[in-house]
Amino acid sequence: MAVNFVRPKIPKFTPDPWAIQFDQHGNLKHLLTIEGISPQWITRILDTAEGFVSVTDREVKKVPLLRGRTVVNLCFESSTRTRTTFELAAKRLSADVLNINLATSATKKGESLLDTLRNIQAMQADMFVVRHEQSGAPHFIAQHVEPHVSVINAGDGWHAHPTQALLDAFTVRRHKGDFAPLRIAIVGDVLHSRVARSQIHVFNSLNVGELRVIAPRTLIPQDIEHMGVRVFHDMRAGLRDVDVIIMLRLQRERMDAGLLPSEEEFYRLYGLTEEKLAWAKPDAIVMHPGPANRGVEIESRVADGPQSVILEQVSNGIGVRMAAMSLCMGRKGGES
Amino acid sequence: MAVNFVRPKIPKFTPDPWAIQFDQHGNLKHLLTIEGISPQWITRILDTAEGFVSVTDREVKKVPLLRGRTVVNLCFESSTRTRTTFELAAKRLSADVLNINLATSATKKGESLLDTLRNIQAMQADMFVVRHEQSGAPHFIAQHVEPHVSVINAGDGWHAHPTQALLDAFTVRRHKGDFAPLRIAIVGDVLHSRVARSQIHVFNSLNVGELRVIAPRTLIPQDIEHMGVRVFHDMRAGLRDVDVIIMLRLQRERMDAGLLPSEEEFYRLYGLTEEKLAWAKPDAIVMHPGPANRGVEIESRVADGPQSVILEQVSNGIGVRMAAMSLCMGRKGGES
Amino acid sequence: MAVNFVRPKIPKFTPDPWAIQFDQHGNLKHLLTIEGISPQWITRILDTAEGFVSVTDREVKKVPLLRGRTVVNLCFESSTRTRTTFELAAKRLSADVLNINLATSATKKGESLLDTLRNIQAMQADMFVVRHEQSGAPHFIAQHVEPHVSVINAGDGWHAHPTQALLDAFTVRRHKGDFAPLRIAIVGDVLHSRVARSQIHVFNSLNVGELRVIAPRTLIPQDIEHMGVRVFHDMRAGLRDVDVIIMLRLQRERMDAGLLPSEEEFYRLYGLTEEKLAWAKPDAIVMHPGPANRGVEIESRVADGPQSVILEQVSNGIGVRMAAMSLCMGRKGGES
Repeated sequence: MAVNFVRPKIPKFTPDPWAIQFDQHGNLKHLLTIEGISPQWITRILDTAEGFVSVTDREVKKVPLLRGRTVVNLCFESSTRTRTTFELAAKRLSADVLNINLATSATKKGESLLDTLRNIQAMQADMFVVRHEQSGAPHFIAQHVEPHVSVINAGDGWHAHPTQALLDAFTVRRHKGDFAPLRIAIVGDVLHSRVARSQIHVFNSLNVGELRVIAPRTLIPQDIEHMGVRVFHDMRAGLRDVDVIIMLRLQRERMDAGLLPSEEEFYRLYGLTEEKLAWAKPDAIVMHPGPANRGVEIESRVADGPQSVILEQVSNGIGVRMAAMSLCMGRKGGES
Repeated sequence: MAVNFVRPKIPKFTPDPWAIQFDQHGNLKHLLTIEGISPQWITRILDTAEGFVSVTDREVKKVPLLRGRTVVNLCFESSTRTRTTFELAAKRLSADVLNINLATSATKKGESLLDTLRNIQAMQADMFVVRHEQSGAPHFIAQHVEPHVSVINAGDGWHAHPTQALLDAFTVRRHKGDFAPLRIAIVGDVLHSRVARSQIHVFNSLNVGELRVIAPRTLIPQDIEHMGVRVFHDMRAGLRDVDVIIMLRLQRERMDAGLLPSEEEFYRLYGLTEEKLAWAKPDAIVMHPGPANRGVEIESRVADGPQSVILEQVSNGIGVRMAAMSLCMGRKGGES
Repeated sequence: MAVNFVRPKIPKFTPDPWAIQFDQHGNLKHLLTIEGISPQWITRILDTAEGFVSVTDREVKKVPLLRGRTVVNLCFESSTRTRTTFELAAKRLSADVLNINLATSATKKGESLLDTLRNIQAMQADMFVVRHEQSGAPHFIAQHVEPHVSVINAGDGWHAHPTQALLDAFTVRRHKGDFAPLRIAIVGDVLHSRVARSQIHVFNSLNVGELRVIAPRTLIPQDIEHMGVRVFHDMRAGLRDVDVIIMLRLQRERMDAGLLPSEEEFYRLYGLTEEKLAWAKPDAIVMHPGPANRGVEIESRVADGPQSVILEQVSNGIGVRMAAMSLCMGRKGGES
């Protein structure tokens, strides 16, 4: 709480033009980041996802849109949850799926990343789903694949996690309809969160009424106001009148870095308890990208309570990923 | 061979009502244990399996019964063999299959078992196949899943392995027809065997003429007679006039616990050699759940001999698992 | 460069008759080695592959030839690349695929190789794709499987890698047409290369005009001239007038064995640079089984240059493996 604390900078990421995400006809080709995706395209992805998620919640139709196509899950950073949702989305689209764990198998024989990619591509891969601990890796890969191959970013370093942000927008829209009158608060470790960065882009693009971030000074990047958010350091003030609360996952490894006094202290000030939840609108929904640290960023009674839509987010994630995959590959069957 | 040896107790497992295995219409929903499954239902599962296993042995038809459904293999305890048979059974039913090894991937991010399950469930899983080193884990999971999700126990601790027992019953029926006149002997480490426990339940439910267990005192649980079996400590007496011999796998790690003098001694007394096999009926069949320790519980010439049906058990396992899966999910197409 | 250097012997491999590769009607059943496969059959495999690889390069049709069949990838020696190409080929044929990593999972419970195989076979496997560090393992397995099961060698020890040699022949034929007038040079570590051994067999069988090997004395097996190749120790002489240059992968672990002075020295003498490439015919194509050690056996500008067909080899590998699999299983749909 030092007065002179200098907020850390947003980690550098080369501001390449994101035009690469579209082909010369203006069709979506890669999904690397929300930046550069127009509100019309975002809405189109959400509408397409509606077509996949059937009327009865949590049921997704199996469709033959990507039959004969091959989706390759490239995991440079292991994540059962993310790998699984993309694998399921691809299978629901009837694609063949290959899981390649490059953390363990690649380069053991001294092969470069690019050689590995070109080889897998030569096996007639049609799409790479890339998760990488380094910011920009999916973009680098998209720059080097052949014209017929699409790349989807499944999370890169601190940079972006666009499908997570899209499924969050989808979930908000399902519950709240129009984005214009909404107040949305993102709470917690904004600094290290690729999810938060993508959420800020998607909600601003969709013209959300007011977008807030709530966090201690040490967990908010410098100049974040330039991204179009209001900054709060106090939960009571930040949650007032909000319609949507998005809790971020607290990376426990940050504790060691001295950015936080303790988990208990964080929970006391920023953990979403029933008591703090009462400060928001009575019909506010509670979201979390998972996996949640119960008792650190969220109270169990809130995570499992009537305002929580956390598990719906997971369900919606399948449909949204199906939409992103099929649109990138030029198949629009799911559109409603 | 001490005279005062006190037989160890059956490991405690909370005697929850197994009614949870059926829905309110009396349809099979979960398969957690043979207890609570009526002889009519057991027979129905076996009949359904007959429909999947075609006339020519070892060929299984691919059917579209579970197309669009997702079966999740949850391995908390690694087992290539069991994982593989369930994976194959699900694929033959045209389901999408996800393998999730929770021993290595889960809870690394501090997520609880229940959170993990709810998340996978939210991805529209329709069935969990659960293998867990703790007795009761599949039952616990079945109590917490949503109404549309089925759970199959693929082996839990010392407790149960119902699909193994069902495929054993299937194999016996194929060879011997009616169960009423049969004498069946289960030989070996009954104490630690979830397979033995499920076999005793299934054969008693099917009203087998006489069910025997043959083992040293140290490997038979207390009060096992209450489960409706005759106990023998001598192979010659125990094998007399039996139609079916089921050898159990000897868990070598038990040796260290001092329950057995040595593998050689065990083999001398209880290993199924050609010589001992001659004490049973001439047309007795020899079974083993695999993998067999040759030279410990069974002689190679017997395992590979004309009376052995060990590999048929493996083949039948696919059809029986297809039957259990499709019945639990309310699809009866395989029924003959 | 000692004058009296004695060239090492070809590693012993029992010269079993390869007749086992065909059934009594003369149909291909297993693919274990190129030896014993007639030029007519080799041509038939290549023609069938043409039927799978469509007119537009790098696109492979999905066909239902092996629907309901189960292909088991048995990896005793880990290789993401090989496992992946066979998995994709099987999926394009609509087979169900099981990946079993026996290095990590098998025999942990004390099961023998044969028991493991029989068990997987009893699960209605129709084909084993076997990769093993020991020469002859796939042949051993083929001798022990049931009549309806096919075995494909995906690389065994120093012995053979027949599908790699076939895809190389396929790639050469696509670029050069007729084999008779061609001069082909295989360059590098011939001694330890199962790929080289299979290539020599396939190109001799196809009656290539002249087949050369170029390598230092320490990396060429004794009596290799008996296999029908001309031996060169000098790149300039060896590359003169050749139409096809096949670089082999240099196993870095061989360095330690003292067979080579250093990577730099090897590169200086045998590494394929643009300068050395100019010694071959102007339209010579450059091949490599991958993964290539850039700067050791090949210069990056050559590997990525206009004469390189390295990535085409990978693409062709899918179609050639589909052809081998479907022919072994008696399905000929892809034939053109």
